[in-house]
Amino acid sequence: MRFTSQTSSDGVSEQFFTLGGIPGVLWTPTDAAGTRPLILMGHGGGQHKKAPGIEFRARRFVTECDFAVVAVDVPGHGDRPKDAEYDRIATENAARVAAGEELAPLIAGFQAMVARRTVPEWRAVLDAVQELDHVGAGPVGYWGVSLGCGLGVPFVAAEPRVRAAVLGLGGASVPDPESGSGSESGSESAAGRVTVPVEFLVQWDDERVPRAESLALFDALASAEKTLHANPGKHGEIPAFEGDSTLRFFTRHLS
Amino acid sequence: MRFTSQTSSDGVSEQFFTLGGIPGVLWTPTDAAGTRPLILMGHGGGQHKKAPGIEFRARRFVTECDFAVVAVDVPGHGDRPKDAEYDRIATENAARVAAGEELAPLIAGFQAMVARRTVPEWRAVLDAVQELDHVGAGPVGYWGVSLGCGLGVPFVAAEPRVRAAVLGLGGASVPDPESGSGSESGSESAAGRVTVPVEFLVQWDDERVPRAESLALFDALASAEKTLHANPGKHGEIPAFEGDSTLRFFTRHLS
Repeated sequence: MRFTSQTSSDGVSEQFFTLGGIPGVLWTPTDAAGTRPLILMGHGGGQHKKAPGIEFRARRFVTECDFAVVAVDVPGHGDRPKDAEYDRIATENAARVAAGEELAPLIAGFQAMVARRTVPEWRAVLDAVQELDHVGAGPVGYWGVSLGCGLGVPFVAAEPRVRAAVLGLGGASVPDPESGSGSESGSESAAGRVTVPVEFLVQWDDERVPRAESLALFDALASAEKTLHANPGKHGEIPAFEGDSTLRFFTRHLS
Repeated sequence: MRFTSQTSSDGVSEQFFTLGGIPGVLWTPTDAAGTRPLILMGHGGGQHKKAPGIEFRARRFVTECDFAVVAVDVPGHGDRPKDAEYDRIATENAARVAAGEELAPLIAGFQAMVARRTVPEWRAVLDAVQELDHVGAGPVGYWGVSLGCGLGVPFVAAEPRVRAAVLGLGGASVPDPESGSGSESGSESAAGRVTVPVEFLVQWDDERVPRAESLALFDALASAEKTLHANPGKHGEIPAFEGDSTLRFFTRHLS
């Protein structure tokens, strides 16, 4: 793990790093010392580790909860090189949708492929970040919606350090890297291995994820404590009060 | 309005009253003076104004939010006389269910009949309670699940003083007293007249209300701000953390 730059503002220290070629950012309270809860955040499709929706929430976790937060670029996103295979598949999928195929299973198949890389990458990020004195081996939370949900479900299923997760804007056709497909049976087994408390966000008028798919993913989670929050509005329109709820959820389970 | 008794404990004053033959209870902060938000609570089927689930929440509204809370017995419940017609219908419905009829529409039809009495009763209760110096004409909230949802939807739709409502454990076949039926078209029009912010509770494994019915009722509410909270468990198993959410919801909209 190599730190490339560091700045501080408004009580938050922001450290950029690379780890095995993966660019990442770590946010911690300024002058933090000692072990604290850590949130790993997964960004959305077409976004990156410093997307506004990531950074805004990360700074709240740091300033209001005293947590550490880490985010890295997903392959093909942010500061990572373009990926020729991803580009080819995206072009191919666009053509298949234009020809009348359903979007959701295509997205699921794509996310399954990406998750086979991100699950081990994110586990390595946890290993490295928890070695740092000002982070330590405290409880871990995961936050991710949309692509961050599709990649997050298999990550949370695979990683026992994660104690609680906020997920959402994703459907039941989430990838199961272990089965190597985005099929429903695969998705159910990935979601069925999630047992930690989950707060699951649904946008009632989501134009990208069919409502029934969202409800089926919530249904498939094996967690004894899981709570679904559905609000009117489109994919990108999560209401601000859900941010407050997220903070309370992680505080309840990680503090 | 005639007060029949008063006690105080743990910072909460509890006043029993009758209003036009309706027995009720008013909880306020001890030594309260001046106008404050008021929550009207509707109890569940077979319960009464002082049922544990009502009183526990009422005391939290008073001690943690400084609100006033009022609850009255629904016809045929608590300290009100048995109602021969209700008893006859209940017996009849039990026989129809035993003969294979669906329960939900029968419940809806029954609630429609009760709501034609409770909507005007509860409006009269608001009139009377808001005349009191230690309550006053502040913003009003409504809380009610199960029967309290079936009666609450038409009440909230009819009563402009209500600014926010917590509802749930109820289905789309809620009564519309204006149409005089519990039919789906009637229910949609009652829910479709609810425009205030709503927090809507669904028990994911509700053995009394089909999941699709719950989701359809949430869908039918015309409120621009409505948020559905679904949790695993049966009809009576709302998790404790939803109580905290309810307090924050009313605080946000009534304070």
